[in-house]
Amino acid sequence: MDRLEPVSRAEVDAARARVDGRIRRTPVLTVEPAAFGSPQPLHLKLDLLQPTGSFKVRGAMSLLTATDVGSAGVVAASGGNFGQAVAWAATQLGHRAVVFVPATSPEEKIAPIRRWGAEVRVVDGYYHEAFQAAKAHVSEAGAVWAHAYDQREVVAGQGTAAVEVLADVPGVDTILVACGGGGLLAGIAGCVQDEVKVVAVETEGTPTLHAARTHGGPVDIEVSGIAASALGARRLGELAWAAQPWVDDALLVSDGEVVAAQRALWRETRSVAEPGGATALAALTSGRYVPSPNEQVAVLVCGANTDPASVS
Amino acid sequence: MDRLEPVSRAEVDAARARVDGRIRRTPVLTVEPAAFGSPQPLHLKLDLLQPTGSFKVRGAMSLLTATDVGSAGVVAASGGNFGQAVAWAATQLGHRAVVFVPATSPEEKIAPIRRWGAEVRVVDGYYHEAFQAAKAHVSEAGAVWAHAYDQREVVAGQGTAAVEVLADVPGVDTILVACGGGGLLAGIAGCVQDEVKVVAVETEGTPTLHAARTHGGPVDIEVSGIAASALGARRLGELAWAAQPWVDDALLVSDGEVVAAQRALWRETRSVAEPGGATALAALTSGRYVPSPNEQVAVLVCGANTDPASVS
Repeated sequence: MDRLEPVSRAEVDAARARVDGRIRRTPVLTVEPAAFGSPQPLHLKLDLLQPTGSFKVRGAMSLLTATDVGSAGVVAASGGNFGQAVAWAATQLGHRAVVFVPATSPEEKIAPIRRWGAEVRVVDGYYHEAFQAAKAHVSEAGAVWAHAYDQREVVAGQGTAAVEVLADVPGVDTILVACGGGGLLAGIAGCVQDEVKVVAVETEGTPTLHAARTHGGPVDIEVSGIAASALGARRLGELAWAAQPWVDDALLVSDGEVVAAQRALWRETRSVAEPGGATALAALTSGRYVPSPNEQVAVLVCGANTDPASVS
Repeated sequence: MDRLEPVSRAEVDAARARVDGRIRRTPVLTVEPAAFGSPQPLHLKLDLLQPTGSFKVRGAMSLLTATDVGSAGVVAASGGNFGQAVAWAATQLGHRAVVFVPATSPEEKIAPIRRWGAEVRVVDGYYHEAFQAAKAHVSEAGAVWAHAYDQREVVAGQGTAAVEVLADVPGVDTILVACGGGGLLAGIAGCVQDEVKVVAVETEGTPTLHAARTHGGPVDIEVSGIAASALGARRLGELAWAAQPWVDDALLVSDGEVVAAQRALWRETRSVAEPGGATALAALTSGRYVPSPNEQVAVLVCGANTDPASVS
């Protein structure tokens, strides 16, 4: 089967023009080598400072500004960060948002989606059932469909984080980025292509990219562990697979290494990251990624939707 | 009695040249009006991202780079953020640090001072006793004395935060800043002088500036309440008093308003601020400070040394 065309720098630049001024321009915090034991100062892209606490508003806003959204609004299936992001972005733009969540999602995940302004539909069953109900609603109501990680405008939106890293870290050599469904990875890779080394990091319980690499393409896996709520897509997106020529390495970290990275981030920068948000950093703090002496490394710290008590 | 000369912009600029590259360049996060109900986008100076979790490393590093530090090192009396800052800055520069803490300080406040590399001396009694023991040690050992808020080089260092705000927020009209002993306030005011409106914010339990204004000069007060550990100096510093011509307003907020600001900051930016770190923001979120429709407001979010569980 032919691969899809990967999302390109031109698509990311177009997304950037659309979302500019509609989401936050998050900062890069450069920390001294002693903080995380890196040979050079380390550049932390603090995308957890976005509205709703994750990078996902980039993709949601990119989609909604690229699309003619009618009175039926936008529809997503998500019990997590993407549901919050779609709710927030739609509300900002004055659109209706309907988010389908599985009845298995805990109330503390559902409440913020409502609070950011979406109509929540709870569907009996698991994520698959919520996904099917959402797609059916899209067809019936003529709504806009928002996919969390495998839709070109969404991926291009996530890639805008890399545009900002390139601007804020002149001479950056390497970007470490977490991978679940791979939307952020595909956007970053499509933006920097061969200009910057891209290293994908997964937890041992959510290895969609490793599975795809082993099988020669995305396959369903069982997900588990500490990062499953954010990185727990069951299969790598086709757009992430298409971007693999620009992904230089794929690393695995353990749940324990993720927790250690969360704690280090709190100790050294007073930032609270959820497990998925600290997974990329964990590759560095665990020693699984060892930068060369002069390598300028940027790390996407991409989400903070967790109980803050968990990091100390 | 003649007032001291206030710390000047020239002193702040000199401090900035000394500390540049030795502490972090913290970002300003600009958030949309909806987030905190401000008429314009709000500019949050996230100085809680400094090493040790507070702005105090600015003053500590400024002092230690302005001074010839011998083998006896630097001495401070502090059971809080300044003790951590002196420990960290001295260690970075390869100096010895001795921090005197009262036996009444809880172990969780003392442990980080040790962890950042200082020798901790626990003194029977309260802060006054620790302060006297520290001063005695300075005389005997020939060490450098570091005062948390009433020493020119320390105040000039704190003022470097304002240099960064001026650079990052072109057209800023107003800076909201918390006041305890007033070191940060004096540095900010000395930097911006009449160029930018400076609004000091205190909690009702730590009103050193209000007391000084009432009495025509700094006087001892009893401190209490949620922010006492960070803003709980018993008396406004003389340098803060000297800077009053550049302080446009002084506001009080309640402990409940501070907690509400901490929670709003977590909800809207996933940042964890300690009570003293959220006090300036509380003036805005409580409605005690009401910006005019076109006013560009920056808020110093200056410390995060708290149990993260406390903000959610």
